[in-house]
Amino acid sequence: MHKIAIGQAGGPTAVINASLVGFVEGLPDQTEIYGIMNGYQGLAENDLELMEGSDLDWLLSHKFVPGACLGSGRYPFTPDAMIKAVLNLKARDIHTLVFIGGNGTMAALQKMSEVASAMNYELQTVGIPKTVDNDLSGTDHAPGYASAAQFVALSVRDISKDLEAMRNFEQVRIIETMGRNAGWLAMAGGLLKHTEFDGPHMICVPEASLTKERFLAQVQEIVKTNGMATIVVSEGVTFKGGAQVQREVVKGRAVLGGISTEMEQLIRMNTGLTVRSENLGMNQRCAMWAVSEQDRTEAYEVGKEAALYVKKGMSNIMVSIQRCLDIGYNYKLESIALERVANDGERLLPQTYISKPTDFYLWLEQLIGDRIVRYPPMWRRRAYDDLKRNQPEFRRSQ
Amino acid sequence: MHKIAIGQAGGPTAVINASLVGFVEGLPDQTEIYGIMNGYQGLAENDLELMEGSDLDWLLSHKFVPGACLGSGRYPFTPDAMIKAVLNLKARDIHTLVFIGGNGTMAALQKMSEVASAMNYELQTVGIPKTVDNDLSGTDHAPGYASAAQFVALSVRDISKDLEAMRNFEQVRIIETMGRNAGWLAMAGGLLKHTEFDGPHMICVPEASLTKERFLAQVQEIVKTNGMATIVVSEGVTFKGGAQVQREVVKGRAVLGGISTEMEQLIRMNTGLTVRSENLGMNQRCAMWAVSEQDRTEAYEVGKEAALYVKKGMSNIMVSIQRCLDIGYNYKLESIALERVANDGERLLPQTYISKPTDFYLWLEQLIGDRIVRYPPMWRRRAYDDLKRNQPEFRRSQ
Repeated sequence: MHKIAIGQAGGPTAVINASLVGFVEGLPDQTEIYGIMNGYQGLAENDLELMEGSDLDWLLSHKFVPGACLGSGRYPFTPDAMIKAVLNLKARDIHTLVFIGGNGTMAALQKMSEVASAMNYELQTVGIPKTVDNDLSGTDHAPGYASAAQFVALSVRDISKDLEAMRNFEQVRIIETMGRNAGWLAMAGGLLKHTEFDGPHMICVPEASLTKERFLAQVQEIVKTNGMATIVVSEGVTFKGGAQVQREVVKGRAVLGGISTEMEQLIRMNTGLTVRSENLGMNQRCAMWAVSEQDRTEAYEVGKEAALYVKKGMSNIMVSIQRCLDIGYNYKLESIALERVANDGERLLPQTYISKPTDFYLWLEQLIGDRIVRYPPMWRRRAYDDLKRNQPEFRRSQ
Repeated sequence: MHKIAIGQAGGPTAVINASLVGFVEGLPDQTEIYGIMNGYQGLAENDLELMEGSDLDWLLSHKFVPGACLGSGRYPFTPDAMIKAVLNLKARDIHTLVFIGGNGTMAALQKMSEVASAMNYELQTVGIPKTVDNDLSGTDHAPGYASAAQFVALSVRDISKDLEAMRNFEQVRIIETMGRNAGWLAMAGGLLKHTEFDGPHMICVPEASLTKERFLAQVQEIVKTNGMATIVVSEGVTFKGGAQVQREVVKGRAVLGGISTEMEQLIRMNTGLTVRSENLGMNQRCAMWAVSEQDRTEAYEVGKEAALYVKKGMSNIMVSIQRCLDIGYNYKLESIALERVANDGERLLPQTYISKPTDFYLWLEQLIGDRIVRYPPMWRRRAYDDLKRNQPEFRRSQ
């Protein structure tokens, strides 16, 4: 009987369990499925559980539940721990290892593959993509991102509306999003901007350089024009010459957060404006009611695709989502070498998206659907205007 | 022609504009409606706009939009400013003043009534209830609260699920909610608790006393039992003998926030646990997609009821929501004297709700509807068990 071990690693998302369920439902009935508890730690410490009967039913009941039901973690997976992990798999005669995760998870899976090979242990490895930051390479986007992006877009729109009502009392709000090195989530804050007057009025991403002077000047200019300023900032943003703001270091990992507070203080010290900052927090990655249906569908599908790769005997690969260049939203699932994913490293926001946000929003909108858009946002009307300008025939036919 | 001035005051909610639209739609067609800009400040500074034609259409388009479309604020409405306000109304021959707001707004409206009377100016005053804190007296609850409560309940449930996945890495999360002196919103965090194992595991409200020693002991006990602890805390909570934690003072008003950070530091200093705190922020009062339909309906209805009171010539009153003691959820709208609302002051969480949360959740559930509840939460199963225990006939008939 085919034995398979599957785990979840890194920060959970609102749809990572949908991928787990998709994978399990895609496997032949007779497969023995071992759940790895708490990510790579469970693999190193031999904490695996055979999922059958009521345990399997319990697992499958998590399709719509946020968090990682097998347990996740941020385990420092050392070479020694990897050797132990291979021995643990060997003791149970498990030759297939599947992990749902992001960059770090895929790099570790690739290394596990090398360690097993060096130990002459046959090990099939398949990765299932997941990230809220969207910084995973080799795929157009990864499940988890679109739901988080939707949460950010809705929050920024509504918090800015709230500020608009209070702008006689306070003028500036700074909204901090996740995104250690990539600005995908912060940029999503502008998806539902309705008019030039509405927020957000400034989006700060780690990919673009920012000086304190320029920042302050821009904020004051915006408030002069609009009476208020809603600013969105990635947790990973730094002022030129400065370092990322760390809240604390937990078990060797820097927990970022605090750039919004730094900006708040900077504005308070240097202007007469009333300012407040807030961090959108954990809801970004777990708010079940902000899940994009398209995101959940894709999360399930990449899981199912991974089951297909397992059946076909493919190895050292990750499932990726590739967009087709047809009209509307079309995508296909393709395998991509784990090595390439690991070597490409973090995927940053392309400069073209920063300089022309409309292109980014056209890309993003498809992942979210239009359920939440009551009226066409500003960028969409602009895109339409561009289309009219650039295509005379289109204009004539109107 | 009947001339009416209407304003919105205090912190906005996700449904305060629904009340405004309900009020306007409830008025006879021939009424002249003046919108007061930015709350009482606009009234004192003569910033009123006649709402007709496209301006009126614009106002009516806000039924589903969060924030206060007329502008709100936290204006210190002094006796001098009130005299100016009466003169401004007099100059336009406006004899009806309506405000949508909470405690402070109703107290100010009551005083405006007295000032006008002392100036021999005939002024009809009608209040429309609004608050996210639910600390408004004289009404079973106020529009705005249920939507905020739903946001808190969903956030706490999902953030706790996320923590469950990460509890090998971090064990404690502290979630701070709005609620300066009343714990209505923090208590709502337990509405969707599914089992004893699931979060929240502790809810701290301003109405119950708390020592640092007891708090630390409880947190450690919970983590020992569950492997994690999700704690919900009102911004207004203090440790025994301590003061409320202020973030800053803006124009004479203390902005609270920080008790969760204080708790986080306390736990970090005194236990070996990894802990993180977060504030649910402005989304609580403005997240449009977390709005309870029942809340929006009631917000609209209290606005319409106020229009009826205006037509009937009633004055010095606020619309209140009274629950009827029939089966299921029934309520009626009743007028209540502004004086009583002002004198009763802030409405705190009753001790019975703190000692028997099930009663509170039975009360709250009706305001939210069951759209979001996929499985019966723990308190509901317990309530059912209680029912079975206390009513033998009920048990036998099963």
